[in-house]
Formats: sequence, C-alpha cells, structure tokens
Amino acid sequence: MSLLNKYKEVRQRSEDICKPLQVEDYVVQPVVDVSPPKWHLGHTTWFFETFILKPNVTDYKEFDPNYNFVFNSYYETIGTRVVRTDRGNLSRPGVEDVYKYRKHVDAAMEIYLENELWKELHDLVLLGLNHEQQHQELLCTDIKYILGNNPLQPAYDTGTATELATAKSAGFIDVTAGICEIGYIGDGFCFDNELSRHRIYLQDYSIADALVTNAEYMQFMEAGGYTDFRHWHSEGWDWVKNNNVDAPMYWHLIDGSWHNYTMQGLKPVDLDAPVCHVSFYEAAAYAAWKGMRLPTEFEWEAASIQFEWGSRWEWTDSAYLPYPGFKKAEGAIGEYNGKFMINQMVLRGASEVTPPGHSRNTYRNFFHPQLRWQYTGIRLAK
Amino acid sequence: MSLLNKYKEVRQRSEDICKPLQVEDYVVQPVVDVSPPKWHLGHTTWFFETFILKPNVTDYKEFDPNYNFVFNSYYETIGTRVVRTDRGNLSRPGVEDVYKYRKHVDAAMEIYLENELWKELHDLVLLGLNHEQQHQELLCTDIKYILGNNPLQPAYDTGTATELATAKSAGFIDVTAGICEIGYIGDGFCFDNELSRHRIYLQDYSIADALVTNAEYMQFMEAGGYTDFRHWHSEGWDWVKNNNVDAPMYWHLIDGSWHNYTMQGLKPVDLDAPVCHVSFYEAAAYAAWKGMRLPTEFEWEAASIQFEWGSRWEWTDSAYLPYPGFKKAEGAIGEYNGKFMINQMVLRGASEVTPPGHSRNTYRNFFHPQLRWQYTGIRLAK
Amino acid sequence: MSLLNKYKEVRQRSEDICKPLQVEDYVVQPVVDVSPPKWHLGHTTWFFETFILKPNVTDYKEFDPNYNFVFNSYYETIGTRVVRTDRGNLSRPGVEDVYKYRKHVDAAMEIYLENELWKELHDLVLLGLNHEQQHQELLCTDIKYILGNNPLQPAYDTGTATELATAKSAGFIDVTAGICEIGYIGDGFCFDNELSRHRIYLQDYSIADALVTNAEYMQFMEAGGYTDFRHWHSEGWDWVKNNNVDAPMYWHLIDGSWHNYTMQGLKPVDLDAPVCHVSFYEAAAYAAWKGMRLPTEFEWEAASIQFEWGSRWEWTDSAYLPYPGFKKAEGAIGEYNGKFMINQMVLRGASEVTPPGHSRNTYRNFFHPQLRWQYTGIRLAK
Amino acid sequence: MSLLNKYKEVRQRSEDICKPLQVEDYVVQPVVDVSPPKWHLGHTTWFFETFILKPNVTDYKEFDPNYNFVFNSYYETIGTRVVRTDRGNLSRPGVEDVYKYRKHVDAAMEIYLENELWKELHDLVLLGLNHEQQHQELLCTDIKYILGNNPLQPAYDTGTATELATAKSAGFIDVTAGICEIGYIGDGFCFDNELSRHRIYLQDYSIADALVTNAEYMQFMEAGGYTDFRHWHSEGWDWVKNNNVDAPMYWHLIDGSWHNYTMQGLKPVDLDAPVCHVSFYEAAAYAAWKGMRLPTEFEWEAASIQFEWGSRWEWTDSAYLPYPGFKKAEGAIGEYNGKFMINQMVLRGASEVTPPGHSRNTYRNFFHPQLRWQYTGIRLAK
Repeated sequence: MSLLNKYKEVRQRSEDICKPLQVEDYVVQPVVDVSPPKWHLGHTTWFFETFILKPNVTDYKEFDPNYNFVFNSYYETIGTRVVRTDRGNLSRPGVEDVYKYRKHVDAAMEIYLENELWKELHDLVLLGLNHEQQHQELLCTDIKYILGNNPLQPAYDTGTATELATAKSAGFIDVTAGICEIGYIGDGFCFDNELSRHRIYLQDYSIADALVTNAEYMQFMEAGGYTDFRHWHSEGWDWVKNNNVDAPMYWHLIDGSWHNYTMQGLKPVDLDAPVCHVSFYEAAAYAAWKGMRLPTEFEWEAASIQFEWGSRWEWTDSAYLPYPGFKKAEGAIGEYNGKFMINQMVLRGASEVTPPGHSRNTYRNFFHPQLRWQYTGIRLAK
Repeated sequence: MSLLNKYKEVRQRSEDICKPLQVEDYVVQPVVDVSPPKWHLGHTTWFFETFILKPNVTDYKEFDPNYNFVFNSYYETIGTRVVRTDRGNLSRPGVEDVYKYRKHVDAAMEIYLENELWKELHDLVLLGLNHEQQHQELLCTDIKYILGNNPLQPAYDTGTATELATAKSAGFIDVTAGICEIGYIGDGFCFDNELSRHRIYLQDYSIADALVTNAEYMQFMEAGGYTDFRHWHSEGWDWVKNNNVDAPMYWHLIDGSWHNYTMQGLKPVDLDAPVCHVSFYEAAAYAAWKGMRLPTEFEWEAASIQFEWGSRWEWTDSAYLPYPGFKKAEGAIGEYNGKFMINQMVLRGASEVTPPGHSRNTYRNFFHPQLRWQYTGIRLAK
Repeated sequence: MSLLNKYKEVRQRSEDICKPLQVEDYVVQPVVDVSPPKWHLGHTTWFFETFILKPNVTDYKEFDPNYNFVFNSYYETIGTRVVRTDRGNLSRPGVEDVYKYRKHVDAAMEIYLENELWKELHDLVLLGLNHEQQHQELLCTDIKYILGNNPLQPAYDTGTATELATAKSAGFIDVTAGICEIGYIGDGFCFDNELSRHRIYLQDYSIADALVTNAEYMQFMEAGGYTDFRHWHSEGWDWVKNNNVDAPMYWHLIDGSWHNYTMQGLKPVDLDAPVCHVSFYEAAAYAAWKGMRLPTEFEWEAASIQFEWGSRWEWTDSAYLPYPGFKKAEGAIGEYNGKFMINQMVLRGASEVTPPGHSRNTYRNFFHPQLRWQYTGIRLAK
Repeated sequence: MSLLNKYKEVRQRSEDICKPLQVEDYVVQPVVDVSPPKWHLGHTTWFFETFILKPNVTDYKEFDPNYNFVFNSYYETIGTRVVRTDRGNLSRPGVEDVYKYRKHVDAAMEIYLENELWKELHDLVLLGLNHEQQHQELLCTDIKYILGNNPLQPAYDTGTATELATAKSAGFIDVTAGICEIGYIGDGFCFDNELSRHRIYLQDYSIADALVTNAEYMQFMEAGGYTDFRHWHSEGWDWVKNNNVDAPMYWHLIDGSWHNYTMQGLKPVDLDAPVCHVSFYEAAAYAAWKGMRLPTEFEWEAASIQFEWGSRWEWTDSAYLPYPGFKKAEGAIGEYNGKFMINQMVLRGASEVTPPGHSRNTYRNFFHPQLRWQYTGIRLAK
C-alpha cells in the first residue's frame, strides 16, 4: 500500500473508533492515566503538524497556535503544555473544532504525501502512523474506562469490539538452553526500543501455550489469593490493601456471581476467556500462587513462534530497559521511548484492541506495574 | 405572580443561562468547587422530583432511578451519591438527557401546581425555586471558571452579562451605638438561616458607602500588599505563598498592564469598577493595610438602607453561625443550611449574577475564606 | 509577688513538668500539632531572649545565633524558622543544651529584673510569663500525646496530675435577656484578644451548671451517635468517616469495656468525670443529639459566676474573631493573637493542666474544630 | 573465626558505631527512608530473638512481648508492626532499654552458640549477622542524614569515618563479547538473590576503571546538566523539578564555593574524590551527558576483577529482578529479598561504610532510583 493510502486508512480508523461516542464522552478524564478521546484525536494530529508539516512545508498555515499548548503530550523539546491531569478540564477546543483540525492537517498531509519523500521523512510519517495506532489502542482502553466507570454503565457498542477470545491450553512448551537473538530484524517498521538485535543466553525453561483463563484466576481468588501476602511483592501488597483490590478491574459481584463490564455492557464473566485487566502485581501473585513465575521478555520472544498470541498484552518479569546498542534519535523524536526506561515493566503480544498489523513478536509495550486499564493478561513460565 | 408562573419563569432562566454553551462546556469540573453545568441543571430538577413529586404525586413515574445517585448533592438523608470531586468524570447522562429530565419533571410539576397546595408544600416549592436561583448564580460563576481557565479564554457571550458597575464613594456613614434588630421580618420567603429575628447591641462604627475599586486595590498591590505578612491572617499568608497569589482571580499581567477575564473575554482592568474575585484573606489584608477592618454582618445589615448594594457579594468579618432560636427543619430539608455552620464566613449583598429579586438585606451567603470564584468584593468599616 | 519572684516561679514550673521524662521523650513530634518538650523549653526561653534581652540589655551575649532559627514558632517579623512539621526531626540542640540555654537566659533576666522597669517592659515580661504558662499547658497535653500514643502506653507519673474531677449537676441556670458587658476589666494582666470590653445584647437562655459526664457521653455512643449523620456538621461528618472516629481520643475498648489513657496510664473510664478530649464536632453533635446546643462565648461569660468551671476547656459555638476595638500591638508581639482569628472556635474555662491562676472568666482559648488533644469538654445550653 | 566470635564481633561493631551519639540522636526519623538508630539496634536484636531463640531455645524468656510490634521491620509472617513512618514518633522503649534488650539476647545467643548447631541454624545465624552488617551500613547513612540535615550541622566524629578515597583513572577496560557466568559460587555466605549462578551472553563493551570524580561531576553541573531535560529520564526530570535538585545531596554553595557535609562536618568538596550521594537519575543523566551509559550489573560483575571497587556503591542500569532459578526460602526468611524485586535498581560494589568483608563482587544491593542518602557513585560504560 502506498504511504498515502496507509495514511488515509490509519487516520480514518481513529475516527471510526469514536463513532459510537456522544459529544460528552470525548471530554472527560476520570483518572490521570486516561485521556479524553478528543485529546487523542487532537494529539495524533498535532504530531503530524509539528514534526512533518511545520518544519517541511513552507507555505503550511498552522491551524491554531494555541493547539501546541493543548495537544503536546510530553515533548519537552516542543515547549510548555497542559499538565496531564488537566486534560479533562478543557471543554475547548470542542469536538467539532478537533475534527476541523484533523481535516486541515489531513488536507496538507495528503498533498505532501502525493510527492516523493526522502527516506528520513518516510520514516517519520511511518512513525506518526504507528504513533496514531498506539493511540487507537489507548482510545479503546480510555473509552472503556470512561463508560465502564460511569454509574449508568452504558455500552460502547453492540457489534464492533468482541472480548470472546478463549484460551485453550495443551500445556507447556519446553525450550532448551542456548544462545538466541533478540530484537527486530527486517525491512519493515519497528520502534527504536526493539533495537539493536543482539545475542542473549537463555537457560532451560518452559512456557505455557495459552493464557490464564478467568476460571483459573477465580480459583486464585477463591483460594484467598488477595488476602495472603506471601504471594505478593511488597509494593504489590501495599497496593492491594490501599486500594481494597479483590478482583480484576471491571469485575462486579452481583447477587453472588461475578460480572464484568465489557464494551457491550455488563456481562457474566466468561469462564473460558483469558483473564484481563490485571496489574503486574496480580499477574506475579497468581504465578507465585501456582508455584511458577512470569516469563522474561526474552523467553517470551524466543518461544513466540510456538504459541498463539495477540488476544491480550502479557506481563513479563522484565523491566523496561534499553537493549545493547540502543540509540535515541536526535531532537524531539528522541523523546519517544528512551526517557521512559525506568520503573516500568515490559508487556509482550497484542490485545483485541490493538490495531491489526500494529504489533509483532519483537514489540515492547510497557506500563507501570500497578496499572490495569489496558487489556493485560497472564502467561505462566517455569 | 402565581406560583405556577413563578415556577416557569425560574426554570426557564436556568436554561437561558446555558444557551451560549457548547455541549462540551456542560461536562467539565476543573476544580472541586465548580460543578459541571449539566449537573446544576440536573440537580435542581432532582430537588423537585425528590422532595415534591415522589412523595406527593401518587402516579408520578420517576424519570430514571439512577439519577438519584448522580444528582444528589449533599443530602445524606436521601442516600449515597457521586462524590463531589467525581462530577466532572461523568459523560453520562448526556446534556440532551438532562434536558429531557427537566421536561419530564416540569410537565409533572406544572400539572401539580395548577391545583391548590397546602401551605407546607407551597413553602417547599418556593424553597425549590430559591434553591434553583442559587444554582443559577453558581451556573454563572462556574461557567466563568470553566471558560476563564481554558487556555483559549473563550468569551461566554457578548451581550448578556455586564461587569461594568462602578463604585462611587462619598465616604463613610457613621452609625451610633445602640440596640437593633437583625434577621428577616415579613411575609415573603426567607431561608432558615435568616431566623429568628433578634436583638443585638452594636457599638459606634463607620461603614463605607461604596465598594473598594480596582484602582484602589491596585494601590495595595503596588505597595507590596501581597509580600508583607503583617497584613495577613496566618492561614491567609500560607495561602498566598502556597498558591503564589499576587492579584485577584482572573487577572493577568500582559505586557505590563493588568487585564482580567470577563464573560466577554479578556479585557483591560476597569479601574472604576469594584474589585472582584478576591478571597476573604485578601479582603481582610486590604482592610488591614488601610488601617481599617471589614464590617460584621450585623453592622452591614443595620446600615444597609443607607448605601447601595448588589453589585458584589461583600465579605464580612462574621463567621457563619446560627442565630438565636435557629431551628433546622425536619428531614432532608433540614440539611439545607445548618450543617454548614462551621469554618465559613458570611457574605452580604448580591452580585451582578444573582437572579433579580433573589437576595435581600437579611440574606446570608457563606463561603470558605480562601474561595474567590464567586463575585466577591470589599466594603470597609472602622 | 515581685516580678522577679513570679519569673522564677513560672520558669521553674516548666522544668518541674518535665521531671518525669526520659531524654527520648523530649525529642519526638508524633503529629504536627504536638511539639517536642525540648522545643517548648527552648521556645519560651527564646521569647525572653528575643523580646527582652537582645533589644534592651546592651551587653547581653546571645547564647547561640542558630537558636533563633530553631526556636522561633511563628513570628514572621523575627525571621525564618524551622517548619513546624520538622521540629521532631531535630536531635540537636540536645536536652542538656536546652537546659543550659535556659540557665543562661535566666541569669541575664534575673539581673535585669532586679532593676526597675518601665511600664512597657513590665507588660512584656508579664506577657512572656503568661506565654510560658500557655506552653506549660501544651507541655502537658503534648507529653500526654507522646506517651499515650506509644504502643507501650507508659505512665507519665503516678502522683502529679489527676483527672478525677467529677461533674455534679443540679440542672440548668436561666438567664434573662438584656444588655451585658463582655471582655476584661481590671488592673491585672489580660491578652489583647480579651479587649476592648464592650456591650452586647443577649436573648433569654439556659446554661448547664455542670459539664457532660463520661456516663452521659457513653449514652450518645450507645445510641449510635457516631453513625447518624443528622447530628453532625457536614465537615464534622467527613471527619468522623475519614478518621473512623467512634469515641473520644485516648479511649480504647478492651474486652468490651472502655478504658482511657491518663497521665497515670491506662484506666477504666471514670463514669462520673467530665468527658474529655472531644473535638468541637463531637461536642456539637452531642448537643444536637440532646436537642440542645453549645453556649456562645458571650453566654458563657455572662453566666460564668453562677457555675463552677476550670476542670475542662469548654467548646463554645463562637468563632474566634476580634472584639470591637481590638488592636494589634506594634511589631512582633502584634502577631500574638490577631493573625489567628480565622477558622478557629473559642473555648472558655480552664483545664486541670492549666497553670493555677493563669485563666479567668474573660479568657479566650481557641483551637480548630477537629482538634482534641487538649483537655476539652462539653457544657450544654438551650 | 568461630561463629561465636564472629557473633560477638559483629554485635559489638553496631554499638561502636553509635558511641559518638547523644541520646537524642538515637530517636529521630527525619524522612521515611531513615530509621532512628535505636530502632536499628533493636531490630537487629529482634531478628535473633525471633528467628533463633524463640523457636529453638525452649526455656528462652522473651525480653518484652511488645517489642515484636515495635522492632519488626517488614516481616508480615511475624505479625503487625509499627508503620515505618511512625518509627521516629516513639520515645519508648528508650535507648537504655534497647541496650538492655541487646544484652539479654546476646547472653542467650552466646550460650546457644557455644553448643553445636545444625547446618540450617548455622546458616540462619550467619544470615542474622549479615543482616546486622547491612544495618550497620544503614546506621552510618542514617546518622549522616540525621546530623547532616540538622541546622547546626554537628560532626559525627573527628576520627572514625573517612571519605577521602580518590578516583584515579587510566581510562576504559575493553571486554570482548561472549558467554560468562554470573552469580555466587563458593562455600561462603551469600544472599539468596545472588543465586543461582547462571550463564549469560554479553556483547562487546568498555567499562571505566575508576569512578566519576567530584571535579568531573562539577563540569556536568557547570554545563547546565540539571537544567537540560534531554539528559534525563522523564521521571528523573520530574524529580529534579519537584525537588529543586541542583547538586548531589549534602552539597551547599557557600560564598560561591561548593562544600559538602561529611561525618567530620562541613568541608570544601574534595575534587579528586568520587562523587557521592547521587540518585540513579543523576547517575544516568551524567552518563547521557557524556554520551555514555551506566554498565549493567552483569557487565560490572564480569569485569570486576579488572578494576578496584569498594569506595562507593555503583548504580547499574539493571533492575532488581530474580536470577534464573531464584527460590525464596520457606517462612519469614523468604521475605528477605524476593518481595522487593520490583521498581528498584541494582547497585554493585561497596562503600566506605560497608562493614569490612561484608560485600563481594556478586553482591546485589538495590534502592529506588530517586534515593541518594546511601553512599552512591557512578562508573561509566560504553
């Protein structure tokens, strides 16, 4: 597909995700980690305006100079910005204005993309599209949070998203010790954090061929998993007690039976589906309770051709750190990944709300260990 | 005017205030003291539904049972409710649904009000209307906050609200010591906190016949008023330092000259207008700098026929406490005023966004001393 | 008694209070409102050094210039100071050094006091002594807090302090409406907040001739007083829930029977003693539950010759505000009282740990409404 | 050396460290990470009482049952404990009682150690001694914090501790890619987190043969290192701004020249000494500014025989995670290391206040990335 067509397709998909929303749903920010949908729509547009159009298109007319302040996420290079906790306090620019902003930038980008591009800008546009795909996933997880934490528990849609993956397990895959290579190889797009490809040495290990199911996780709950400190990291145990956690996010005990909020509204928990919306602490505690552990990201990658993945992001017991030879790009783009390489854990795989084709088996997602509004699940290792 | 007509008029006015808003403006809550406009519209409606219709109209059909949870403000008697800080996290019910809710309740109320009412319900309806008028003022102050703290600083409207009152002073009015009566007397409506009317003794005092102007307040600023602790209460001084306060709310120093955000957008500060959006701490510090003081609410009331008032709520040096003989009503209505009689200061008068006819010279408004998003000004005494 | 003898007596009493302490007890600050005993000993000394010796005694040699930073409490006039929450982090100056500091200042003061003094300094020395007496009371309440919140619950002493006052009531005293005078009159010492003496008008009221007893307060507890919001101020109810309050401070339910920590250690609650260590919120809630109210400070003062007082500070329903004609002194001494006249409630009377002769029936003590580490009790009015 | 003699030697050393202290210095806890010295003395004693004496010595008489509550650090298995932030609020047990407690436990331990021990208890005693050595280091770092943050800046001692190590560098050591083994091997004591010894693969790398000096670090400061976000992790940059960090801990700019607080008091910064008391964020920012990086813990260990180490703990760019085959011990001892394996970074080496012989080149120390009250320094890699 041409870059222009790819551009149109990705941009359209963001707007498609928002179609079932009411205007009000675009505006709120119930917790700091969630951003208002209109902010995602504006921010991904700002990325193209700031990094492609303004520096490279001589006669480009900026849509509104104030938008830089509103839609910059975390690029210190680009100047001051609205504090993250304040995003949900902004009623303006309104939703209609944000869509106008998108049209304005898209028109300029499409003209630009009809011409030839140097290699560098080709990569930058591709980065912008992958960036927008990441925000498409966040759009889904944030919309789920906004609706799922509303006392009316409205459904997002009845048809689009499905959370019906089932996890069928035949057991464990054994992998023999030895040297293997880790990191991206090939001609396609990858993020800087997947490089450089390098050798590591792995000991013998076994890794599950399927994710932990809701039924299995409920056994942990019924066995008192949330009340026995021995399974937990010390900071995880504090997190459980301070937040009175006793089930995955979105679970509600109604008349003695567990339900969870899905994009289609509140439903009885599907026992065969992989458990979802658990924190790293819960994933690690579950594994400890089973007498096992989480795989490292290297074990995961090395074995990934031998199992199915993609229905859930999978917590690993690897901290998010640079690979040997990792290099930050010059300028603002260099802030993309490297500066977050502390205090976060790596997740591998993809989820049902990851845009198709966006992930790959060298992809490194990362979140703080207490977070669980993403579609996060558990694969065991031993 | 009949109660029915009064009802229609008051209810309509709330919706008129919101006409210039975009849907997004109805939703946000930038600080805890501000509520989303749609919440005000819903809450005032909930008041009639809960206290008039549900207990008194046998065949009344509740609009939506979940709304009680969403639109209850602070009535513990009526059940659990959305935490005040969470009001801005709720995208649903949407604005359209809130207007439907109003229509539904208005239809039932209008049928009800066409019939005769016992005295008790007459008073309760009147309370509901005065309650809605109080929220009309909050609608204005909250909308001002929502727009005035947006980085785009959009105007609310170009015609409706005016902040052009000027404060012309001929000096001080001297009042001679003696017994006088305080509190409401008459046949009209008053709040329970204005009762019982009772005698007090006042010493000789003098009270200004006009409010402090912006020009006068700027002298305080230029004299270093915000950097000299001696003028301030101890908690006021902490407030100044912790919040880096150096001017009234909504003031911005642009190219060396003071502007302030008004409902018509950002304007140069009008020197002759009364200073507005100051906290009790600032009002008291200004008075101390002048070698004077704020009046008590009793001094204010006793002298109030001798000066003009109504352009600004005026901080007094009286704490909000019960009058002798104060009685809480039975049931939820008893929570209206009495339970707030701690840690707040009384304001007297009215402001340009107070609904016409709503206030009177025995009216007791009250806020915490650090708040300044209301239209609050300063009258001196000595 | 000569001023010199008065000086010696008061200064000695502070050290006597500390005699039962171990060195470690002098150092800690378990909550922000409590100060380490060695800080009280140093601060009261600093008062004399700073306000009497340094400005008035030409050849006075300051003990240690760093002590101004450590022992200043809240006098902005005198320079920066250790933040209040940091007092318990300072192991130095040590206890022995603080006693040396006292000796050094006392030696200079005693020479100074042997000579004649102008009126102004006489008053300042008297203020310093009354100031030290106030800190003697705080020494007792803070020591009680330090020991009473230690898991070992050590007794302070077995003989000195007694909490055995009983509250015997014959009922209510009726007072007839009329003008009366409030505020200090006489030749002795009083604080500036007791002035000026002025007329007020009081309505008819009745005031209890004794304090509420532990037995009476337990009836409130048993009737569910802590779980029924209707008795409480709104901020009081939040305080109850946020702090899980269900009894006065220092009370512990041991094997089904209520005990409280006293200076002599943990004891069964004395049913006939006046209830102690309650907040304003609790006092007001108790009164509301009884269908009564707390007296105002004016009602209290006007009736005070007709009842016994002095075993407990008594919460009134009066906010701490200036009397008509109140004037702050010039300079640092002006910071003594006036700057605290916001957000606090007045207490009248005295407690068993108030130095003998320190209080009087015009004395105005004041604390924030949630505090209860002072010896605070309840007198009803109606 | 016999285990008995080793026991005596280690136990004596803890008390020697405290000899220069005043009683007051034993009591305070200026920040949550620092514990009062008397708590360290009690807690290390509690370890022997709880894990050796109580379960194994039939007629052992517990010193005081309340001490378990006071001196438990983080062992959930053993019961409730004083919240960590509360340690500095406890004046009792006093210092003298803590020394009595030590004598009581030492007497019982010495009798016990004169007899033969099974292997398991031998290891447990050894663990207790290594545990006490770790607290000896914390005693030093905590005492430094207590005195160095006191406004009087008292010296700890004039002779004992020296911070005079100099860092002389001949450049970088090159290491060739290949498999190597990591983790403890041998017959001596090691912590469970050093096991199991396992193979890893390392790429080519170079590692500095000396630590970064104060002179070198000052170049970073002078080049604006603390004001240029590009060198910093995102969370590190927030930490710099929120805490106004502009130099290593304990540094003070006096009359234009940098001094730092040492155990001998305030001194001009020694330019040739290794920089100390820097956070991981500062270490990483310094390395980024130099165009280099921190070594991983594996690179450090593999090259450690080729350079001198021991004057400073050295931040690595490795998160604290379990080695392959890591196993927690059964029971409370299993809480020693494993439950902390999240959100912390590994430090290698030892510092001048590490007990002689306590560390080794497989030793894994770990702290949160923002902490810097430990003796922490920087070794570069590339």
